[in-house]
Amino acid sequence: MTDQRLLRDLHLDTGGTIVFLVLDGLGGREEVPGGPTELEVAVTPHLDRLAREGITGSLDIVQPGITPGSGAGHLALFGYDPLEQLVERGVLSALGIDFPLEAGDVAARGNFCTMDADGTIVDRRAGRPSSEEGRRLVDLLRRSVQLEGVEVLLEPVKEHRFVLVLRERGGRPLGADVSDSDPHRPGVAAAEPRAGSEESRRTADLVRSFLEQAGEALAGEERANMVLLRGFAARPDLPSFDEAYGLSACAVADYPMYRGLAALLGMARTEPPGGPEAAIASVADRWQAHDFFFIHHKKTDSTGEDGDFDGKTAQIEAADAVIPDLQALEPDVLVVTGDHSTPASLAAHSWHPVPVLLHAPATVRRDAVTGFGERAVTAGGLGRRPAQDLMALALAHAGRLGKYGA
Amino acid sequence: MTDQRLLRDLHLDTGGTIVFLVLDGLGGREEVPGGPTELEVAVTPHLDRLAREGITGSLDIVQPGITPGSGAGHLALFGYDPLEQLVERGVLSALGIDFPLEAGDVAARGNFCTMDADGTIVDRRAGRPSSEEGRRLVDLLRRSVQLEGVEVLLEPVKEHRFVLVLRERGGRPLGADVSDSDPHRPGVAAAEPRAGSEESRRTADLVRSFLEQAGEALAGEERANMVLLRGFAARPDLPSFDEAYGLSACAVADYPMYRGLAALLGMARTEPPGGPEAAIASVADRWQAHDFFFIHHKKTDSTGEDGDFDGKTAQIEAADAVIPDLQALEPDVLVVTGDHSTPASLAAHSWHPVPVLLHAPATVRRDAVTGFGERAVTAGGLGRRPAQDLMALALAHAGRLGKYGA
Repeated sequence: MTDQRLLRDLHLDTGGTIVFLVLDGLGGREEVPGGPTELEVAVTPHLDRLAREGITGSLDIVQPGITPGSGAGHLALFGYDPLEQLVERGVLSALGIDFPLEAGDVAARGNFCTMDADGTIVDRRAGRPSSEEGRRLVDLLRRSVQLEGVEVLLEPVKEHRFVLVLRERGGRPLGADVSDSDPHRPGVAAAEPRAGSEESRRTADLVRSFLEQAGEALAGEERANMVLLRGFAARPDLPSFDEAYGLSACAVADYPMYRGLAALLGMARTEPPGGPEAAIASVADRWQAHDFFFIHHKKTDSTGEDGDFDGKTAQIEAADAVIPDLQALEPDVLVVTGDHSTPASLAAHSWHPVPVLLHAPATVRRDAVTGFGERAVTAGGLGRRPAQDLMALALAHAGRLGKYGA
Repeated sequence: MTDQRLLRDLHLDTGGTIVFLVLDGLGGREEVPGGPTELEVAVTPHLDRLAREGITGSLDIVQPGITPGSGAGHLALFGYDPLEQLVERGVLSALGIDFPLEAGDVAARGNFCTMDADGTIVDRRAGRPSSEEGRRLVDLLRRSVQLEGVEVLLEPVKEHRFVLVLRERGGRPLGADVSDSDPHRPGVAAAEPRAGSEESRRTADLVRSFLEQAGEALAGEERANMVLLRGFAARPDLPSFDEAYGLSACAVADYPMYRGLAALLGMARTEPPGGPEAAIASVADRWQAHDFFFIHHKKTDSTGEDGDFDGKTAQIEAADAVIPDLQALEPDVLVVTGDHSTPASLAAHSWHPVPVLLHAPATVRRDAVTGFGERAVTAGGLGRRPAQDLMALALAHAGRLGKYGA
């Protein structure tokens, strides 16, 4: 696998502009045995042309057979090691509401729940309150809970869900190795959060104090009379795109999780564009200001998750339609791929490798592939390889890496 | 990646003869969009036949996207880890003049320079003296400089350049972690060489003393009145071909750097043959004496570096023409590849993978590839893989590796 430090050592300050167009969940699967995949059936004249003029292949996002979450998938595309540099659940939840996490913050997922008089959990979701009701409950907690030496930051997510962030006010850094209070099933008592390391002992004390105060504050509520916490995680210390690659990066994404992840990697962000056409216009506005653009298209994934084969096909075609406007900007390197597969026939993320194309008129060595599809690219010049290799290849084709060794 | 220790553990003392024909910078790129590469356009009936009868693929020399220097490229082809077992600049310079480095030697690159009365560097190359003048200046230094406890070995390279080697006379080994005196730009003073480790403290002292004495010796020179040193490096402690693979190896190469690298790996060397035909004759003379032959053809790279597409094509054809004479020797394994790509269209080394063919009549499993070219071999049975895998494959096909596990 590519060593990010090697890329940093070899990086050149000059070079061309790189665009990653990520069609979320791009990889698909046949709907009927022997039939075409979503990408194969889609009419994509522009993607086919890019594949013909460029080089193609398939990406194993995490490892063969491993189904990636969206966070891990994007990290791998961006050249980070998705196993070593995992963005964990609590942090993903905070990113998912675009919460501005700072270094040292510890985040967790929270649920309002219903507990009976004996402390047994009756409903892990407190009867699914409305989002408005959820916001009222979060406000109540904000007014009621105070912890010694740390800021308690609470943000509603949706319905019964919220995010808790503990932010150290200048003392020793907080460890994040704390076990869940959420037993992940009803009919039992909540678990006592325990520290898994010496550094996390104080965090566990703070979390227990939080739970005690939350229970008191919510005692008068009919259903949401307690909270459950899970997925404690610290904001990971990842090198930014500037640190790792010497790139000034900009993300163009509609959905909070992707926007949050981009912010974590030091990318600037445009306003949520609201679809592919506006996304390209947004890139055009910023074209001179950045060296790297990450454009995210979500609906290829959401239609796949819905099991909507035709809907996913249409979303791929919608992305294809904006390629000419993107190419009019003349990126030196244009990569089109996905962060994982989401075959409509499985209605879920999957482990299947993801097709990729790299278009770079001045530097690419073309392969013999003439169209963009899962089967076509198996003959591609990039072969089947780890997604982590992609950034090095993009940087090389943009003239942004020096020679290794004399 | 292949573990060299595993190969050593499994090595058999019997087996066939292996030949590596390395066409330096072999990999190319289209000159016009959609056109053929240098190798694809070259008329290579013999290489095409070898590809048809053998197995083919593409090599990532260091890593995908990384452009290798020639030293790193050859190390990788020879099964050494180019990232862990780097041959650094000072040593490469010494190898480049075929200087017989010994274990423990510390080598550096030197320049004669012009300094003004204040010690500011006016010209880092002392007005580019002739090579004859450079030799006179090196002789002057040889007569003038003496260091306590170490031999000072000085060799002219070309014009203002020379190599300095410090050789311990039996005391503690010299560390090589010493910073450059060369500030790499004019208009400033030279830097004071500093030790980067405890073991290199004495080396740094010796280097400072060398610089002081050199300054005194050159004080009367009009232009070359000082020297600059950079790239301090120790001769790396690499296992020889005999130690690593149980092979008696012989190098047939014209250019000093490759001859020096071969010597570093314990290869015997023929006289510089002066071209491919004489190289094969030279191999024939030694055929019974060795198990492994490394034949180096430089001009595929130098024409590529010159941006001379047709010249590189002609050099590939020249190499093709000697294949029948090479095959007449009946090598058990014949590998043809390059140490990196040098596309004429880029006029430089590049990261593009390098085509490879392995011909081994008695043991190979043929693939369906019928010609030798960058696009053809993407369908090859070797796939796209790290260059470091090549030695294991060659040894296996030569019957030189035992079974792993019972």
